[in-house]
Amino acid sequence: MRKVSLELGSGGKLMRDFINQHILKTFKNPFLNELSDSAHLPREIAFTTDSYVVDPIFFPGGDIGTLGINGTVNDLIVSGAVPKYISLSLILEEGFLWEDMEKILKSIKMAAKRSGVEITTGDTKVVRRGQCDKIYINTSGVGTIIARPSIQKIRPGDKIILTGTLGEHSVAVMLARGDFGLESKVKSDCAPLNFLLPIWKKGARWMRDITRGGLATVLSELAEKLPCSVLIEEEKIPLSRAVRGATELLGIEPLYLACEGRAVLVAPGKKAIEILEEIKKDSLGKKAEIIGEVEDKVGKPGQLLLSTLAGGLRLLEPLTSELLPRIC
Amino acid sequence: MRKVSLELGSGGKLMRDFINQHILKTFKNPFLNELSDSAHLPREIAFTTDSYVVDPIFFPGGDIGTLGINGTVNDLIVSGAVPKYISLSLILEEGFLWEDMEKILKSIKMAAKRSGVEITTGDTKVVRRGQCDKIYINTSGVGTIIARPSIQKIRPGDKIILTGTLGEHSVAVMLARGDFGLESKVKSDCAPLNFLLPIWKKGARWMRDITRGGLATVLSELAEKLPCSVLIEEEKIPLSRAVRGATELLGIEPLYLACEGRAVLVAPGKKAIEILEEIKKDSLGKKAEIIGEVEDKVGKPGQLLLSTLAGGLRLLEPLTSELLPRIC
Repeated sequence: MRKVSLELGSGGKLMRDFINQHILKTFKNPFLNELSDSAHLPREIAFTTDSYVVDPIFFPGGDIGTLGINGTVNDLIVSGAVPKYISLSLILEEGFLWEDMEKILKSIKMAAKRSGVEITTGDTKVVRRGQCDKIYINTSGVGTIIARPSIQKIRPGDKIILTGTLGEHSVAVMLARGDFGLESKVKSDCAPLNFLLPIWKKGARWMRDITRGGLATVLSELAEKLPCSVLIEEEKIPLSRAVRGATELLGIEPLYLACEGRAVLVAPGKKAIEILEEIKKDSLGKKAEIIGEVEDKVGKPGQLLLSTLAGGLRLLEPLTSELLPRIC
Repeated sequence: MRKVSLELGSGGKLMRDFINQHILKTFKNPFLNELSDSAHLPREIAFTTDSYVVDPIFFPGGDIGTLGINGTVNDLIVSGAVPKYISLSLILEEGFLWEDMEKILKSIKMAAKRSGVEITTGDTKVVRRGQCDKIYINTSGVGTIIARPSIQKIRPGDKIILTGTLGEHSVAVMLARGDFGLESKVKSDCAPLNFLLPIWKKGARWMRDITRGGLATVLSELAEKLPCSVLIEEEKIPLSRAVRGATELLGIEPLYLACEGRAVLVAPGKKAIEILEEIKKDSLGKKAEIIGEVEDKVGKPGQLLLSTLAGGLRLLEPLTSELLPRIC
């Protein structure tokens, strides 16, 4: 009998197959078929949802509450909508510390304030001890559409911009679990991407926040839908010293690490510098870089290629195996 | 140290205190403050959310998927909106049977079709074995507002209409757990309340679906907000023979049992008969009854009173202790 495996939740190939073969086939409709970070509904409304099961619930740089707001807010922003209204649904484990819940509610309040959203509706369920792990949160979000991102508009010569360093969220959560006995000052990058909203007006063609599966998965899913290839340069990809150190030590590829406050976007070649400068003005975007471009001369259509530090060309595939369950 | 108890999830007094003292105080805003079954947002949009943790996930008359759609759809309907778009977020336990998931997805599809909604966006998380119980579902819903229910419009002489028999959902789930060694043919009443949408135009003042806490909790929360009392008559309250039998045997009060396809509404005295007839036309409403009225001569303002079969007058309070965890 087939059973659900942890890999299904990785944001990689297995999850994509599940979405294509089960979710899309079962619920086929024009809103869902887009598989965007949010559904664009009538009345210029965008709608998105995410459940958060991160372990541990408190980590350097944030907690499950911060994550629950920023994650949903970011899904709206990268799909071309101004985040406005959030629903908050809590699943609590019997025995969960009241004090921890109060801290998390406070984090939610702060994060909502920072990204300009209101908590407008909610629900609370309590399950017996051992039937969930402390607290799981679902937030859904409603926003107002200001841009219609389109993969069809992407052309060779368009630039790929990464808004900051990779992997802080994953490394912070991983080390907070204490599994590796490593100490580090890495803080999660968990943050709202509201500073990217003006970038839509400056001509960005497409954006995606980098979560489960990391940069490599997000960009290979983009490349697959293009009639050309995407080439990124390893030396251009910003990494903090701490993440570089931890990933080298643990033998993990930072290109597959989840972030919670970074996005990758496609900008027309001629506007790329202007857009990069605009992004760099915000403290959350100051490490932004043009890391590659859409190509029609290198590789085959649909491929994501990495020009490595060693001078080679490497084909990047979407994440296939689970790196870290319950990262978000 | 204070800890979360199962009672918090009961839909009774403890949950209300939590919502008032924590959720409302923390997230104060005009949308949330209404504490309606859905938030009325700009652009004539209503927005609601619910997580479903029912145990067992399959029960006579439905499963967690049917419940996940109907519950959210009903929250929109009773708050004056036509349900339109649903988000679907799954939290799956590692090892959950694929076959069961496929059954649940099919139930979701059927339920969505029946109530005229589309699944437009979603999310899937997988947690390790023992970190949830098989599957938890969150659905949020967006609908278009067709009526503005208002407690302020309620007047003495208004009638209380119950759309059907009480308690089938609770009894079906309770017996499916096998805790009582009872056999019964009771099926959950889980169903969409779309047939109530035309009732808004006929002049209904207020509606609520009867879920956790049951009829008594829903009506005592209504009564508390009124400058008058609410009187209901025990002999008018429709109960199926099976629910009557099971609740008598187990010593449970059916007035506190959760339903998943029943609503209670307030209709102007002069229109009550017409509205009742309209409700009875639908197969889901054929057991509907006028069970009481808004009073200014009996009891004190804010009270919910039951005129008992024995001829007495009993004050009904909101549910205080948990009857059944994970009923929905």
